[in-house]
Amino acid sequence: MRDIAVFSGSAHPGLAAEVCAHLGVPLSPTRVSRFANDCLEVQLQANCRERDVFVIQPLVKPVQEHLVELLMMCDAARGASAARITVVMPHYSYARSDKKDAPRISLGGRLVADLLVAAGAGRVLAMTLHAPQVHGFFSVPVDHLHALRELAAHFRRYDLSRTTVVSPDLGNAKEAAAFARMLGARVAAGAKQRFADDRVSINSVIGDVTGRDVIVLDDEIAKGSTVLELLDRLREAGPRSIRVACTHGLFAEGALKRLTEQPDVLEIVCTNTVPLPVDDPEEFRGKLRVLSIAPALAEAVRRIHNGESVSALFDAPRDEEE
Amino acid sequence: MRDIAVFSGSAHPGLAAEVCAHLGVPLSPTRVSRFANDCLEVQLQANCRERDVFVIQPLVKPVQEHLVELLMMCDAARGASAARITVVMPHYSYARSDKKDAPRISLGGRLVADLLVAAGAGRVLAMTLHAPQVHGFFSVPVDHLHALRELAAHFRRYDLSRTTVVSPDLGNAKEAAAFARMLGARVAAGAKQRFADDRVSINSVIGDVTGRDVIVLDDEIAKGSTVLELLDRLREAGPRSIRVACTHGLFAEGALKRLTEQPDVLEIVCTNTVPLPVDDPEEFRGKLRVLSIAPALAEAVRRIHNGESVSALFDAPRDEEE
Amino acid sequence: MRDIAVFSGSAHPGLAAEVCAHLGVPLSPTRVSRFANDCLEVQLQANCRERDVFVIQPLVKPVQEHLVELLMMCDAARGASAARITVVMPHYSYARSDKKDAPRISLGGRLVADLLVAAGAGRVLAMTLHAPQVHGFFSVPVDHLHALRELAAHFRRYDLSRTTVVSPDLGNAKEAAAFARMLGARVAAGAKQRFADDRVSINSVIGDVTGRDVIVLDDEIAKGSTVLELLDRLREAGPRSIRVACTHGLFAEGALKRLTEQPDVLEIVCTNTVPLPVDDPEEFRGKLRVLSIAPALAEAVRRIHNGESVSALFDAPRDEEE
Amino acid sequence: MRDIAVFSGSAHPGLAAEVCAHLGVPLSPTRVSRFANDCLEVQLQANCRERDVFVIQPLVKPVQEHLVELLMMCDAARGASAARITVVMPHYSYARSDKKDAPRISLGGRLVADLLVAAGAGRVLAMTLHAPQVHGFFSVPVDHLHALRELAAHFRRYDLSRTTVVSPDLGNAKEAAAFARMLGARVAAGAKQRFADDRVSINSVIGDVTGRDVIVLDDEIAKGSTVLELLDRLREAGPRSIRVACTHGLFAEGALKRLTEQPDVLEIVCTNTVPLPVDDPEEFRGKLRVLSIAPALAEAVRRIHNGESVSALFDAPRDEEE
Amino acid sequence: MRDIAVFSGSAHPGLAAEVCAHLGVPLSPTRVSRFANDCLEVQLQANCRERDVFVIQPLVKPVQEHLVELLMMCDAARGASAARITVVMPHYSYARSDKKDAPRISLGGRLVADLLVAAGAGRVLAMTLHAPQVHGFFSVPVDHLHALRELAAHFRRYDLSRTTVVSPDLGNAKEAAAFARMLGARVAAGAKQRFADDRVSINSVIGDVTGRDVIVLDDEIAKGSTVLELLDRLREAGPRSIRVACTHGLFAEGALKRLTEQPDVLEIVCTNTVPLPVDDPEEFRGKLRVLSIAPALAEAVRRIHNGESVSALFDAPRDEEE
Amino acid sequence: MRDIAVFSGSAHPGLAAEVCAHLGVPLSPTRVSRFANDCLEVQLQANCRERDVFVIQPLVKPVQEHLVELLMMCDAARGASAARITVVMPHYSYARSDKKDAPRISLGGRLVADLLVAAGAGRVLAMTLHAPQVHGFFSVPVDHLHALRELAAHFRRYDLSRTTVVSPDLGNAKEAAAFARMLGARVAAGAKQRFADDRVSINSVIGDVTGRDVIVLDDEIAKGSTVLELLDRLREAGPRSIRVACTHGLFAEGALKRLTEQPDVLEIVCTNTVPLPVDDPEEFRGKLRVLSIAPALAEAVRRIHNGESVSALFDAPRDEEE
Repeated sequence: MRDIAVFSGSAHPGLAAEVCAHLGVPLSPTRVSRFANDCLEVQLQANCRERDVFVIQPLVKPVQEHLVELLMMCDAARGASAARITVVMPHYSYARSDKKDAPRISLGGRLVADLLVAAGAGRVLAMTLHAPQVHGFFSVPVDHLHALRELAAHFRRYDLSRTTVVSPDLGNAKEAAAFARMLGARVAAGAKQRFADDRVSINSVIGDVTGRDVIVLDDEIAKGSTVLELLDRLREAGPRSIRVACTHGLFAEGALKRLTEQPDVLEIVCTNTVPLPVDDPEEFRGKLRVLSIAPALAEAVRRIHNGESVSALFDAPRDEEE
Repeated sequence: MRDIAVFSGSAHPGLAAEVCAHLGVPLSPTRVSRFANDCLEVQLQANCRERDVFVIQPLVKPVQEHLVELLMMCDAARGASAARITVVMPHYSYARSDKKDAPRISLGGRLVADLLVAAGAGRVLAMTLHAPQVHGFFSVPVDHLHALRELAAHFRRYDLSRTTVVSPDLGNAKEAAAFARMLGARVAAGAKQRFADDRVSINSVIGDVTGRDVIVLDDEIAKGSTVLELLDRLREAGPRSIRVACTHGLFAEGALKRLTEQPDVLEIVCTNTVPLPVDDPEEFRGKLRVLSIAPALAEAVRRIHNGESVSALFDAPRDEEE
Repeated sequence: MRDIAVFSGSAHPGLAAEVCAHLGVPLSPTRVSRFANDCLEVQLQANCRERDVFVIQPLVKPVQEHLVELLMMCDAARGASAARITVVMPHYSYARSDKKDAPRISLGGRLVADLLVAAGAGRVLAMTLHAPQVHGFFSVPVDHLHALRELAAHFRRYDLSRTTVVSPDLGNAKEAAAFARMLGARVAAGAKQRFADDRVSINSVIGDVTGRDVIVLDDEIAKGSTVLELLDRLREAGPRSIRVACTHGLFAEGALKRLTEQPDVLEIVCTNTVPLPVDDPEEFRGKLRVLSIAPALAEAVRRIHNGESVSALFDAPRDEEE
Repeated sequence: MRDIAVFSGSAHPGLAAEVCAHLGVPLSPTRVSRFANDCLEVQLQANCRERDVFVIQPLVKPVQEHLVELLMMCDAARGASAARITVVMPHYSYARSDKKDAPRISLGGRLVADLLVAAGAGRVLAMTLHAPQVHGFFSVPVDHLHALRELAAHFRRYDLSRTTVVSPDLGNAKEAAAFARMLGARVAAGAKQRFADDRVSINSVIGDVTGRDVIVLDDEIAKGSTVLELLDRLREAGPRSIRVACTHGLFAEGALKRLTEQPDVLEIVCTNTVPLPVDDPEEFRGKLRVLSIAPALAEAVRRIHNGESVSALFDAPRDEEE
Repeated sequence: MRDIAVFSGSAHPGLAAEVCAHLGVPLSPTRVSRFANDCLEVQLQANCRERDVFVIQPLVKPVQEHLVELLMMCDAARGASAARITVVMPHYSYARSDKKDAPRISLGGRLVADLLVAAGAGRVLAMTLHAPQVHGFFSVPVDHLHALRELAAHFRRYDLSRTTVVSPDLGNAKEAAAFARMLGARVAAGAKQRFADDRVSINSVIGDVTGRDVIVLDDEIAKGSTVLELLDRLREAGPRSIRVACTHGLFAEGALKRLTEQPDVLEIVCTNTVPLPVDDPEEFRGKLRVLSIAPALAEAVRRIHNGESVSALFDAPRDEEE
Repeated sequence: MRDIAVFSGSAHPGLAAEVCAHLGVPLSPTRVSRFANDCLEVQLQANCRERDVFVIQPLVKPVQEHLVELLMMCDAARGASAARITVVMPHYSYARSDKKDAPRISLGGRLVADLLVAAGAGRVLAMTLHAPQVHGFFSVPVDHLHALRELAAHFRRYDLSRTTVVSPDLGNAKEAAAFARMLGARVAAGAKQRFADDRVSINSVIGDVTGRDVIVLDDEIAKGSTVLELLDRLREAGPRSIRVACTHGLFAEGALKRLTEQPDVLEIVCTNTVPLPVDDPEEFRGKLRVLSIAPALAEAVRRIHNGESVSALFDAPRDEEE
């Protein structure tokens, strides 16, 4: 079998190291140089020739730097005669640009997928894409994992008999419903109402939350304003307890502080698909639980490398439609 | 300016003729032959050379026949040196195959988009795609219209002061919310619950419907079983009245009969993106109102041909997210 | 070596099963679903990851259904990370659409070749293409088998000393000449004459058939009208006996009945590249001999999988030109 | 309308000049340089920017030089921002490499088609392709002219009441039949028989030639050995007169001399798709009649440029099949 | 004729405005949004449909931000049905990554060219590429301008009778020689010597500089260390005067200050292909002369739009080789 | 591991045989046929299926014949299901067409790279490309060897204490500098001056050559006129001795004779990347030393086949820039 070679960009080397540790293979070094004119150059510092190359890079802040770096890693691996190049992208932030909801806008989710292929990517391993349709933006095979298994394992330590999983908006409600089924819980969702051209807020929660143990579930928390608005609405209904969970804990612009400061939020749970922001002081991390998806990624990489079924382990149960 | 040439496949020639009438251009004839071995051959029977060619074909039953026919029309126009080929697809049925929700399944929404491009399509004019992300499946420009304007014009004849727009499931709830905003109405949605591996049913309606004038809104009605289940749940809440609306009225397997026979359904409204099924007897059409989207399609074709903005007229207002 | 995985579409599962039996590998199951809106979805129900995938599907009636199903099987295998996808197409009916003999027509033979590649096909195994040039329509490697070996083995049981192989028209005469050489026989051909715009008939047989044991050889028999016309002309010349042979026995529109009812036709020989039509009653099969090409296909698949030469076994001797 | 710019490679500048004279546009100059290392460089010496560029080059001896020169002309026009590049290829010699009749051979007819597209060709104007299927080797639009109209106009000066058109082999018999229909004549064909692995000869003529005025018709005459063999067989049958006609008069290796020396050949007719070989002395041209296809090419170029139908004028009547 | 639409990214809006002023067309507005997750979205705020779209963006610091923004502008224009998309890239910084001079490195110059095409760019207008071969990295037409005309016009104000143009290294010496020919001056070049693995310095100037009026010419000045080293060597030879000129004045890391502080440098001349760094205080700009290439870019855009020859005006005289 | 199969075109079979001898694998036979119409056909006469195919062909005179032959070899290997096709091109003569230094010229270096990929080449092994940027013209991986190691080994037999390596022009000066570093020698370069539009000559040597042992180094010597001009200038400076070295010894138009006749040229050294011209009589080879690069090519092929690092052995030390 072709040897494996795993490289990490500069976005989240800690996660890459953890994945390699689970795989039992070394993390091959990457040199990223920046020239005086601000251009990047990447050198993969281990033989790629006929190797099964994996490049680990979530698209986190600074996104554009990490994206171009990732494209260059693919290009370097291709030029170095890699047998296959798999992009391991634990967080595909551009997946949120998935629809043309205004005239003449860029469609980042599809564009970046095309750029990765143009740079040499031969397959993608992604996690909790903002919408399942984003899978179809790629012209190469995608293995799409989710972290519901890890999140569920965490919450099963609690009494779940009176639990309701709440999605902050209707768009993510299907994911919340799937999670609720895994926990044997109920599901609810926030509904947004437009008051003016530039203001949206959640003005009601549809579903049963009064006296319930609520788990707010979103795919990602960036600024956290949607969750905060939802909390206001939830409180009006009188839940018994509130926990917040997400896969991608971006916590931008002080979001972790704001969430932590909500007295009735008992816990904030996320995974390590993205690194924690360095500017959040330690004091705001008291309610935070970060679950590692490195074992899941490592197992997926191992199966991809060995040609074993990935879906057997990770795919969500199908959601039927008419 | 390059001349325009409009052709219709055999899926919905009536709509094509209506579009051409609004455009004031003739519908150019197409010959579709079937050989003894069941293979098709298409001949476009008007000069395409350096013309701005539009091919009108919704992907309706028999879908595979109409799809291959459409691919051949594109191929014939390309081989005949068309300057540009725009596929006008009022109903893109394969848009429903938009996610990999089971291992090793085909992703028809993306595949068919690629096939159209492989056959020579240079742009697409689509209507009410099952999910807005399907736009991103195409590597060529897409103009994505919706019929909310036509549907809203119809319902504005009624007193809308106590109206709630209800989406049968959470996935289409955003579209229902947009429609509710156009009517100044409220929004609600059905929530599905899985009882066993192969049975899904709507076990609750989240949102306020008691005593309301309900408009059930879906993008398409095929067998209608989702709507029928929703009606059962709605009745438990006691709405004041019920109307059903959709863009694509497929009405498969006797759906129109079943819906018409619901005594409390006052009206069933759809558009003519697809032809009405021929096997529905006249008697089941009493409650049906079919709105024509031919004027909208004709105006879009005219603007595409003239290089005028299409979004200025048809795009929905943007739905903000965090 | 990578494992093999063989799937069959719904066109000819019996042939696929027979091929697998000869290969000694199981036929992996395929699920084909049809949604209420008549769209198809394919699920390959065995692991394809890094497998050497073969998809068996002749393009027989209903051709469009089987074609789209085949495209989806390729797409599903590609999305499921197949190492290589070989389309085994024992009958490529669209090969007859191989030239632009009228303005603005589709060129199905090339178009479908491009669609297969767009859907993920990496190579093709075909049998008795209508014209050898169709090979060049594919941008991926093609192994082109023919059934002359099987047909010759069948006819060698007879005294061939006075045999003439007759091609119904001049276009297939080269194939007939090659077959005649294999049998040590002579060759003749029918010549068509146009009487009016829409009527073509064979008005003479060029070559020596009087008192000969005639084998009429065509690549495919669909409606059989060309063969029937040829029989009329042959009778005028007084042959000693008549047999009819072809690779692809489509027998459309009662062709088998019509041929069987010709009293002087002693035998009708074809292969099982396509399934026999279900609507031909048993009584019309008395003169029919169906030879199996499953052993030949299985051996070709085995050699493709093992990287052994296919041409060494199956390719026809070269036909020299100036 | 975009301006037209016509360039000629070095293969047949006389024809290009004649086409331009008929078009009433100047032939723009091309500079072809050869470096000391034998590499070519092409400079198009007239503005191509946003022009409708036509490049005229038959692929005649030295074929490889003319092919690479043609590819470079396309590349130069593309790099110079031509709006459209049409390759006018009056003789596509590689069309004869149209099938894989031996293992592991190149398929020149398809390969060169792909190379032209890779070099920037956007459409092709070809004449009398060796087989009509070669059309399908191109992924860009092809206008396929033939010279039967010009040849027929020439022969109509004679009494055609006892004329038989004879194809040297069965492969070209369909073309001969079409020509016979244009002249109201009969058709016949030579049949080849293989005696040993490396020798093929015509051992019979199928069809009626005794006492007839024979026109031997082939698409191209290279060495002429097939025609010479056919003449031997024809003489055994006793025709009344013999004329030889073809579209592409390559006359390689002294073919013109050999044919001219046949005392019973009254006339040798070809067109100027290719230049006459310079090494044939004047004395061997006494029986030769060269018809100009420049007016036909010019009219096709004019129609392509103006977006008028080319098929209306030039396409052959369709040859029906079952 | 199709209308023109000019957009500017955020890299150098001042230059874009100046180009538009020269063209006499408005600069169409562009909205660049940054989401909370640091992803960008671009909206072109003027109709692009069937327009001739020009996007102006030099790849300056922050390069990765400006590159992704540029890619999104192309994508947005393509999705908005632009008739043609020309990227106007006055400074292509990635052109310096033009060779594989270490194993397994990215080749940014080619990669970014491919990314631009993948994003929809149909042609490129570039200025003073680091090496002329970079032209060949693009698969779309490139118009390659240089600023020698502008620089020469500036220096012709001086007495040039004793002038020597000096290239800092041998790689740029051809450009320096061309500039010297334009001024009727002599040429010289610095030669680098390697002392250790990580240190390179100029250890000699080859050519005649003693007592000469020296113009140091480079394509770009980033940190300026090469020029500073060259100045040390020049001083040893005793020039009469020193001026420094370049096309792309990046002046990174305080380069302008360092150069200005050289007492014997009389003048520093560059163009406005890139914006001046904001962190260089006004006091260090005393010796700086910034020449505008906006008129040249505007004229090139005008000619591209009108289909007139660009080379006629801007291309350098050819440099012959053996 | 996949088996290896090595084929040679007709350009330099001796080198191919030598490479195979070093590899210890047989050189598989290739049949190249030329039809009467001057078209080529290639047959690879050994099984390619799933093999690791190497095709050895330098692009030497007649370049166009050898190029088309090479393209056909790639096409034949692809059609024969080769697992991978590596073009071994010891001399890529079209690399000299690497820039657009005149309007509307072909860019042969990029075009031929694209043609090779269009014909099926999957990777390239090249030697001493005229400019390192040519690497970036290929969209497939390139291993770029140079012969400096072989040349240096040869010259190390001499006393190198007073040696200067001289590049004939500034463009190749970097390569000369690298070679000088390998030998511990100094570097100098010729500078060209334009006297009229069509005449270029070397009018000075920049660098120290008086009394030195000069090694003139160029990448290729074709007509040799540049070297001869340089010799005139060198003599004016009075070197102690002169030797001439290059990688590609094309020696066109009597170059070897002219160089040999220079009395002060002690030695002419080249490698066997190209065959020696057959028209140079034996007497002019007295000063010639031809070094074999077959061992280096064989080692590179072996490493490519085995997936070992090629750069580890052959790549030049990096040349730093600012």
